[in-house]
Amino acid sequence: MPRRYHCPVELAVDVIGGKWRPVILAHLKEGVHRYGELRRRMPGVSEKMLTQRLRELEADGLVVRRAHETTPPRVEYRLTEEGRSLAPVLQALYDWGAARAARVGEPVGEPTRPT
Amino acid sequence: MPRRYHCPVELAVDVIGGKWRPVILAHLKEGVHRYGELRRRMPGVSEKMLTQRLRELEADGLVVRRAHETTPPRVEYRLTEEGRSLAPVLQALYDWGAARAARVGEPVGEPTRPT
Repeated sequence: MPRRYHCPVELAVDVIGGKWRPVILAHLKEGVHRYGELRRRMPGVSEKMLTQRLRELEADGLVVRRAHETTPPRVEYRLTEEGRSLAPVLQALYDWGAARAARVGEPVGEPTRPT
Repeated sequence: MPRRYHCPVELAVDVIGGKWRPVILAHLKEGVHRYGELRRRMPGVSEKMLTQRLRELEADGLVVRRAHETTPPRVEYRLTEEGRSLAPVLQALYDWGAARAARVGEPVGEPTRPT
């Protein structure tokens, strides 16, 4: 049975809510990422969890997975147009998170970059 | 042990994430609400859940609860200044939810108003 929404925010949270989906989307907003790059940028998430969330985002039409037939195989993720429509939400979350971190003195580690 | 964040979006989601917190905050963004008004606007949430989420939002400094010593007692909730700083996030979620609803043909019921 489809859920009945009583406010557009309920619908938005149902699609992009959860602990990791907004974080994945925020990283992909910055450009195409290989699977391993996402792993490095999100050290707090398990491999199983990341894979599940990516599949859900793909099923919801927000993310596209592309596997290149190279050796070794290269798997890339990018936002769809629908995913890119989330840019204002993701930017607002980022800005608020950064401002809140500064206010409460919470350190936010830089994402690890490949060496 | 405090959680270590690797991206400002992780911190933002930790504070305002979950299924109901953004919805409560979005309603309070529009102004002071009595407890009963929030209940009416959110028919999908149980009383217990709503009370718990409101307490968490109060503990996180985003919401203020004020009990008026009237008969019957009147309990009102409003955003703190920190809560109001979330306005761009809440507006972006609302706008995207409304646009997504239109795109996928998902009906979003009007919040019930007191008669």
